[in-house]
Amino acid sequence: MHTVFYVSDGTAITAEVFGHAVLSQFPLPFEQFTIPFVEDVDKARAVQARINESYHQSGKQPLVFHTIVDDELRRIITDSDAMCYDFLNTFVAPIEQQLGIKAEPRTHRTHGMENKQHYDARIDAVNYALDNDDGVNTKEYDEADIILVGVSRCGKTPTCLYLALQFGIRVANYPFIDQDMSRLSLPPALKANRHKLFGLTIDVNRLQEIRQRRRADSRYAAIDQCRYELSQVEKLFRMEAIPFIDTTYHSVEEISVKILERTGIRRRIY
Amino acid sequence: MHTVFYVSDGTAITAEVFGHAVLSQFPLPFEQFTIPFVEDVDKARAVQARINESYHQSGKQPLVFHTIVDDELRRIITDSDAMCYDFLNTFVAPIEQQLGIKAEPRTHRTHGMENKQHYDARIDAVNYALDNDDGVNTKEYDEADIILVGVSRCGKTPTCLYLALQFGIRVANYPFIDQDMSRLSLPPALKANRHKLFGLTIDVNRLQEIRQRRRADSRYAAIDQCRYELSQVEKLFRMEAIPFIDTTYHSVEEISVKILERTGIRRRIY
Repeated sequence: MHTVFYVSDGTAITAEVFGHAVLSQFPLPFEQFTIPFVEDVDKARAVQARINESYHQSGKQPLVFHTIVDDELRRIITDSDAMCYDFLNTFVAPIEQQLGIKAEPRTHRTHGMENKQHYDARIDAVNYALDNDDGVNTKEYDEADIILVGVSRCGKTPTCLYLALQFGIRVANYPFIDQDMSRLSLPPALKANRHKLFGLTIDVNRLQEIRQRRRADSRYAAIDQCRYELSQVEKLFRMEAIPFIDTTYHSVEEISVKILERTGIRRRIY
Repeated sequence: MHTVFYVSDGTAITAEVFGHAVLSQFPLPFEQFTIPFVEDVDKARAVQARINESYHQSGKQPLVFHTIVDDELRRIITDSDAMCYDFLNTFVAPIEQQLGIKAEPRTHRTHGMENKQHYDARIDAVNYALDNDDGVNTKEYDEADIILVGVSRCGKTPTCLYLALQFGIRVANYPFIDQDMSRLSLPPALKANRHKLFGLTIDVNRLQEIRQRRRADSRYAAIDQCRYELSQVEKLFRMEAIPFIDTTYHSVEEISVKILERTGIRRRIY
């Protein structure tokens, strides 16, 4: 098995996310190691030694994906015996040429706190999602960018948290309860914010499986109960013209991006 | 101002994260647009037209960062009048050569649900973080990978959620309360899991500012109260030999990665 090292002077999250995207096109397993915060010569040399040792032990040339700004530290890594792929600088030179200006490399540029105001807004969005999770509080809906609605355990909470953490968007969520479903009507707090509503639905067997893991053999996890709730809620979505998507085969990333696409809400990029 | 388009057949999150890292080295503002799910010829042509229109309107050549697997769709985008930077394929060819095998490009490879078991484990970690947030529940600490401890509002909850969503790690958090601090002792549930404890601390002025936004002019937000709690908790960290870091100047990404580095817990990469 080939070994892959993600090496960075920062968190290495960029190297990881991008390296993972590139490698997922290869039908091979890889052993992956992440080495963040390589910020001085001693640490860089230790990383070089570790990479070379891995080559020596396995007999297979390791792959190194790196995002290191400092020239000297980068050279220590690329002087290792691995195949080194330089994620940042490969693109920096042609972009410099297009824009007609020089790059000004800085560390901790991507996942740091350079812009405190942006960062605080993002953490506020996380707190907003928690304070307005699961219908516990319906008084702050005027501050929401989006309000997710659907049956219990259809994917609302993880989606709210992802939208907050990744994109700084304020998302509340409200689980339809028996009363809403039997009456087929929106509670007043939702009616007043109808334009912010977005529905999630899910396949009945997948819902049953998720609820069963949560509360085994309860009425809540019974297939008939799941079927009833989903059919009522989808009726309500249609009656009230609430846009909705099926979460069954989609990750939180895909669900989040689909919601932004449908609502036209701009992502904030951090 | 130059316009940047992130274009993908998937969520475009990879293109965004990586493009943002590259562009953050340039001391310029950019207008950024993300166009996900470009999955058919009609949509690709519409994107091409939009890119060209942007060039026409602004007179500045746009930058396009793309991750598109299908050759025909990719060609429609690269036939636009923008400078196109192909994030995936730039690295695929040299890696094919190193590994001696061909890539097998597939869409929805990165942020999809290809591995349902991994995905479920990640969502379970999010649910674990929520169920074990803020000391509400101390009965499931045996299932934790890490238990974050510290005063209220030092950054525990967003860090737990990030570790769960990004890396699939199960993290509980416990806020020290008056009783723990005045006694300078760990409550029994924490004592039993001492090896999992990791402390967070924060600068007193930053804590005061965060608490003030949360509950203005309360005793909770008073500078003396903040100072007292921090000094007691740091004493406790030292007495009990709990590793800890200062969160004041670090983002959730940096805090999370530092915790993994110090504890030696392996990231799961999604």
